[in-house]
Amino acid sequence: MNIYPELLETLIEYFKKLPGIGEKTAERYALSLINFEGDDLKDFASAIENIEGTLKKCDICGHLTDQKICKICEDSARNHNLICVVEDYKSIFMFEKTGKFSGVYHVLGGLISPIDGINPDDLNISKLINRTKELTEAEVIIALRPTIEGDTTTLYLKKILDKEKIKITRLSYGIPMGAEIDYLDILTLERALYDRKEVA
Amino acid sequence: MNIYPELLETLIEYFKKLPGIGEKTAERYALSLINFEGDDLKDFASAIENIEGTLKKCDICGHLTDQKICKICEDSARNHNLICVVEDYKSIFMFEKTGKFSGVYHVLGGLISPIDGINPDDLNISKLINRTKELTEAEVIIALRPTIEGDTTTLYLKKILDKEKIKITRLSYGIPMGAEIDYLDILTLERALYDRKEVA
Repeated sequence: MNIYPELLETLIEYFKKLPGIGEKTAERYALSLINFEGDDLKDFASAIENIEGTLKKCDICGHLTDQKICKICEDSARNHNLICVVEDYKSIFMFEKTGKFSGVYHVLGGLISPIDGINPDDLNISKLINRTKELTEAEVIIALRPTIEGDTTTLYLKKILDKEKIKITRLSYGIPMGAEIDYLDILTLERALYDRKEVA
Repeated sequence: MNIYPELLETLIEYFKKLPGIGEKTAERYALSLINFEGDDLKDFASAIENIEGTLKKCDICGHLTDQKICKICEDSARNHNLICVVEDYKSIFMFEKTGKFSGVYHVLGGLISPIDGINPDDLNISKLINRTKELTEAEVIIALRPTIEGDTTTLYLKKILDKEKIKITRLSYGIPMGAEIDYLDILTLERALYDRKEVA
């Protein structure tokens, strides 16, 4: 005999599909839904159901959007000669939170990884090349994670984009804010040394 | 300008209504929904929508159920002369997880708290009295939290139920499993001393 009514068991199963949620937390969330008031249950449910069909990829940059073109690509106040290349749309949300980037983005949709069978053709690269062809005095910032796959992809993009007349940069690697040097991993320290900057 | 498409913002707001979820976690959950496959989105949504209408209170004990009478009250294999009185249905799920209780339950739906304006009349007490009237040699276990409100309610129930010919017990208070005596609060230690049991 199940302890919970069937509907609750169903909800618990779905909450467990969310990242980092175990049995206990899923139970807590499912039970808390019972106390939702007014139209909250209906509205929450319809928001979940509407994900499919509402959210799609921006035709230009591949970012998540509910329009044909995303708000960032449509924003004429932004610098369209400065393209930040990211692995997925989650990175864009992070950059936007900093509020310090006024350019536009390009979502690759992954990283080159021969082991996993992901080749350059599987990524959103040709569109990036076409975008850069239309620009003059452009800069492409490659903002991928510092792993073998990220570095491979960065080098590949560098090779491809070098044919166009654009400046190609990458994010600096180094010590994360607040970290203690004593406890840093050696590789990060090595990168921080290599990427060192003149004190202005 | 919002960072997220409107639908994602809506989802994030709803996830934040769940207990203990902040902005960051809500964002993570909302974004992870995008990767749900097959009918999962639709089924998750309809489960949430169906809470209202499907889940109601058991006519006998007040427990959460999708039927008129809950599975526990309907189970003839259980001891219906042993009623465990709890504050809310969440306690029942906890007891059921122990797998050690073969009786039935009664949900009060709160605790007596004059400060919050909750009087005995606001609780599911009259039904409990009616239930006990039909029993012979019954035992009522009062399983409420050891707070002023819990103790007040326990004493009130004791006074009311004493008129019926039933045994009235409460959960033992004491040292939680695994706790270190040195770090226990004084009140718990006092209760553990008072509720001491003969070593069998």
